[in-house]
Amino acid sequence: MIRIIGFDADDTLWHNESIFDRAQQRYRALLAKYHPAAEVDRVLFRTEMRNLPLYGYGVKGFVLSASETAIELTNGAISAQEIREIFALGQEMLAHPVELLPGVAEIVPVLARDYRLLLITKGDLHHQERKVAESGLGAHFHAVEILSEKDGATYERVLRRHGIAPDEFAMVGNSLKSDILPVLALGGAGVHVPYHLTWQHEHVEQVPHDQPRFRQVVTLGELPPLLPVL
Amino acid sequence: MIRIIGFDADDTLWHNESIFDRAQQRYRALLAKYHPAAEVDRVLFRTEMRNLPLYGYGVKGFVLSASETAIELTNGAISAQEIREIFALGQEMLAHPVELLPGVAEIVPVLARDYRLLLITKGDLHHQERKVAESGLGAHFHAVEILSEKDGATYERVLRRHGIAPDEFAMVGNSLKSDILPVLALGGAGVHVPYHLTWQHEHVEQVPHDQPRFRQVVTLGELPPLLPVL
Repeated sequence: MIRIIGFDADDTLWHNESIFDRAQQRYRALLAKYHPAAEVDRVLFRTEMRNLPLYGYGVKGFVLSASETAIELTNGAISAQEIREIFALGQEMLAHPVELLPGVAEIVPVLARDYRLLLITKGDLHHQERKVAESGLGAHFHAVEILSEKDGATYERVLRRHGIAPDEFAMVGNSLKSDILPVLALGGAGVHVPYHLTWQHEHVEQVPHDQPRFRQVVTLGELPPLLPVL
Repeated sequence: MIRIIGFDADDTLWHNESIFDRAQQRYRALLAKYHPAAEVDRVLFRTEMRNLPLYGYGVKGFVLSASETAIELTNGAISAQEIREIFALGQEMLAHPVELLPGVAEIVPVLARDYRLLLITKGDLHHQERKVAESGLGAHFHAVEILSEKDGATYERVLRRHGIAPDEFAMVGNSLKSDILPVLALGGAGVHVPYHLTWQHEHVEQVPHDQPRFRQVVTLGELPPLLPVL
């Protein structure tokens, strides 16, 4: 029986990938005179993956990788002022207001009455804390766990730290790879709320429809009747 | 009576500011044909402070602020390849091996036998976790707390989360501002271990020698006889 719900934050409680997507469109436009969009995307993703062990997730690493890619793709012909524009894109992303997804502001307080809620997110500590504070949802969460990676080992650590047995835990999130599959593997329940955009790095081919403790929903409003039968 | 010791990490357990200092020397050399070192330092620090609310602490924010400053100080005349060198400086800083301060490898296991140890550090989550893992000290710490800021409110939260009363807690660190003063204000003990370099942002004029629960030591090896009388 579920007693604790873990919520992912980016693209589960509030918009995030759409902010990256708009920034990346403007980035492609900046480089359009040098390379087609598909080539820009390909080299940017390769640079991001190469830098991930050093930079981790988040906007600052994205800006550094995007600037590095721009220099590489233009053989150093890009101007300092254009690089300054990439930095400004990043600053806009970091200062972007938190926009809650539909229904979130209503359902989180309702669920907080019957369940213990944890916010479990990965990425940049400073930016994530600012978003939690700005969301106005912080008080409904028993704890906020900001992780550098979301995998079996880090979920296990969070559950142990809070004295949670996997069978009483459901994780809710938009990423099958980061929110659902590791929790199902530990014996917890996973509720997938797809977002209309998925970063290539989070992409998973196979939806685990055969797993008994897996569900897919369209909005978080579907959670209350679903949780008691998970 | 002290039962729990909180340790700062950067410049308390291992070298950090010296790595920033060496990077900043190479950064000044890159801009030497445009401006004297003092002017570079002044504008860089101003940019870092302006960006701190968006970027938080850590190497990635430093690299973004240093690159932005270089573009500003050269009126955009700096080349993309020179900006690439600033990024490379940052990547070297992030990949730099962890170098423990003298005596740390010996004293931490000794203290772990008699006290519960917490690692309490601020900065970039991803980079700090990598350094803790690489230090080989992780197993001696009951918990690792990586905070986006170290002040009265965040120390209070950490103590509450671990069920620690301030009078049984001593914080050990190199920064009076981040490690000592907020803990003394809460009623805890503070042991200052000065590092030979202090980032301008962490600078405090007044050493709180009049506070009964304050001590200053040269190395962590002095802790065992000192803690029982704090």
